[in-house]
Amino acid sequence: MKRYLLAPGPTAIPPEVLLKMAEPILHHRNPLFEEIVAEVRENLKYLFATKKEVLIFASSGTGAMEGAVTNMLSPGDKAICIRSGKFGERWANICKAYGVEAINIDLPWGDDLDPALVEKTLKANSGVKAVYMQATETSTGAMFPVKEVAAMIKNYPETLMVVDGITGVGVFELPQDAWNIDILVAGSQKALMLPPGLAFAGVSDKAWAFNKTAKLPRFYFNWAKELTNLEKNQTNFTPAISLIGGLRESLGMIKTEGLENVYKRIDGLAYATREAAKALGLKVFAKTPSPAVTAIMAPEGVDGQAIYKTLWKKYGVTGAGGQDQLKGKIFRLATLGYADKYDVITAIAALEFTLRDLGYKFEMGKGVAKAVDSLKDL
Amino acid sequence: MKRYLLAPGPTAIPPEVLLKMAEPILHHRNPLFEEIVAEVRENLKYLFATKKEVLIFASSGTGAMEGAVTNMLSPGDKAICIRSGKFGERWANICKAYGVEAINIDLPWGDDLDPALVEKTLKANSGVKAVYMQATETSTGAMFPVKEVAAMIKNYPETLMVVDGITGVGVFELPQDAWNIDILVAGSQKALMLPPGLAFAGVSDKAWAFNKTAKLPRFYFNWAKELTNLEKNQTNFTPAISLIGGLRESLGMIKTEGLENVYKRIDGLAYATREAAKALGLKVFAKTPSPAVTAIMAPEGVDGQAIYKTLWKKYGVTGAGGQDQLKGKIFRLATLGYADKYDVITAIAALEFTLRDLGYKFEMGKGVAKAVDSLKDL
Repeated sequence: MKRYLLAPGPTAIPPEVLLKMAEPILHHRNPLFEEIVAEVRENLKYLFATKKEVLIFASSGTGAMEGAVTNMLSPGDKAICIRSGKFGERWANICKAYGVEAINIDLPWGDDLDPALVEKTLKANSGVKAVYMQATETSTGAMFPVKEVAAMIKNYPETLMVVDGITGVGVFELPQDAWNIDILVAGSQKALMLPPGLAFAGVSDKAWAFNKTAKLPRFYFNWAKELTNLEKNQTNFTPAISLIGGLRESLGMIKTEGLENVYKRIDGLAYATREAAKALGLKVFAKTPSPAVTAIMAPEGVDGQAIYKTLWKKYGVTGAGGQDQLKGKIFRLATLGYADKYDVITAIAALEFTLRDLGYKFEMGKGVAKAVDSLKDL
Repeated sequence: MKRYLLAPGPTAIPPEVLLKMAEPILHHRNPLFEEIVAEVRENLKYLFATKKEVLIFASSGTGAMEGAVTNMLSPGDKAICIRSGKFGERWANICKAYGVEAINIDLPWGDDLDPALVEKTLKANSGVKAVYMQATETSTGAMFPVKEVAAMIKNYPETLMVVDGITGVGVFELPQDAWNIDILVAGSQKALMLPPGLAFAGVSDKAWAFNKTAKLPRFYFNWAKELTNLEKNQTNFTPAISLIGGLRESLGMIKTEGLENVYKRIDGLAYATREAAKALGLKVFAKTPSPAVTAIMAPEGVDGQAIYKTLWKKYGVTGAGGQDQLKGKIFRLATLGYADKYDVITAIAALEFTLRDLGYKFEMGKGVAKAVDSLKDL
């Protein structure tokens, strides 16, 4: 079956990137590889909109999340974790595993985050060393106000602003330096159009100062050592060489398109997805939906998992189901990465076939018609 | 320039594996990927010669080394580390980073390890929870007596036998269950003929019992959670999907050739490399050389780094230089993974061209002649 990938990670990989990674492997301790790293370093700075180095790890994104705790904090430190989905919970779980006291701000899944609530929590708890949050909570499709929270935390010199941008970097504006994001984490299998296996972290001067006194144990994810190596176009341990070769290619594609155009494209695709869903009588789950991924509520009487599975099995479209408390209640269609308007039209068409099979009553074609109309100026 | 890769990692990747990894990416939460994991699980058990599960991590080999400390021990525990090169030192450094007391057995680099010395050290120190060693110390080319040390440690129920088999698994016999190796670590970029980015750990029942009381912090490398997921053909976090797809292919190739034949081939290639080096008047560095990689001493008056660099730059052969205290004194040619007799002959020919350029006096052709003769029955 011809298959279409519209999951919120892994995302589709451009053929030129796949072919680049299929070239005979280079050894990482020679100038040919160092040239690649040098170019990648520059383009990662462009992507993160930072003048500082963006660290590269051979791991999935969670490895960089863990490092954003272990390289910054000491046992018994306090940190605020915004929990409103599976990935916000991950921040709290990492803190717990390392003996950091997590002060959790628990929001109903899919809700908005009010920056004032973060400040209130900060004021109510002395000595909070970091705020950990998501740019997009992938499990709910919600987008959080990173800019506003970061602007507030800027006034707290003893507190770091840490953002899981795994489903945000390269999707929408998240300029690390301009917005004062102290740590910005990304992963390869999202907007970067690569297989999973690389994680990234942009690190501010403020964060590097925290690193100097942070006592939590670390070895594989030792950021200070990574920085020293990166400045020599190397990595602390054997890098994921083929993925970094692909990264050079995909970052080149992003630069050629231009970040502003990438953001505009993805935003337009997500808008069309939401409009088409509404035209089919469906509701978008998140109050403030992220352009990365649209979580759509299963209509009454229809199982969200059945939608996700039928889309995949019968109609060749890989989206995602709901996770944990949302299992069966939502399904998700992503628009980040290597996606264009025909992907959205394809996914909506497949959704119509699926909903018909599952007995949902609606007028066939209304979704794709709305999608085409919404996409006409993109 | 046409290039030949004979480094001790990354090693050459078969074209069929490269092409497999260049296929459109699968989503990891669906049955197509789970089928791959199911097959990979079985073939990893064959490779490790174990009935237990072999865990798979998205990291380089060091990540699994770190996990072999953090998942087994508690702060203040004692462990013996065999240090006779860069990677033995890594065990001690990991212990130090996590507050484990490393009792180091320091051997001159390249020397043999006497199992009796390990037992003497065990007896002299009460409460040693683990012995950490290498199967091959990649930096020196030395092979250590894993079988003998493991047979001894079997009599110490409070002590684990942990082997870094990154440059050993798939190179020579290391049957985990039969030899009572409690933890056996491997990496993708060696005998497995894959890019770097995957690490593996085979874990015995004895080790799983240690895990139950181990208090060191861990999150990304949480082995108990990986096991639970692996039994469902999943991983705890997003796996390195494309590398696992390649792994299915490369494990299939190993199984088709047969492990015994793989061991025989690599052993024969290493033998020919050593014989050819001797025919050129050069000395092999390690007292007991590993078939994985041959460390050859630079002849008097010739810089080992110049040999390594000339081989690479002028003659297209990527070997490796010496590391740390051996820099300039040795160069290394590997024979593990996707290597055959023509690779050895090519490398020795390139070595002859290189040595001539660097002013070393010898009879041209003697090395390749000896290599061909040594390989004639392979």
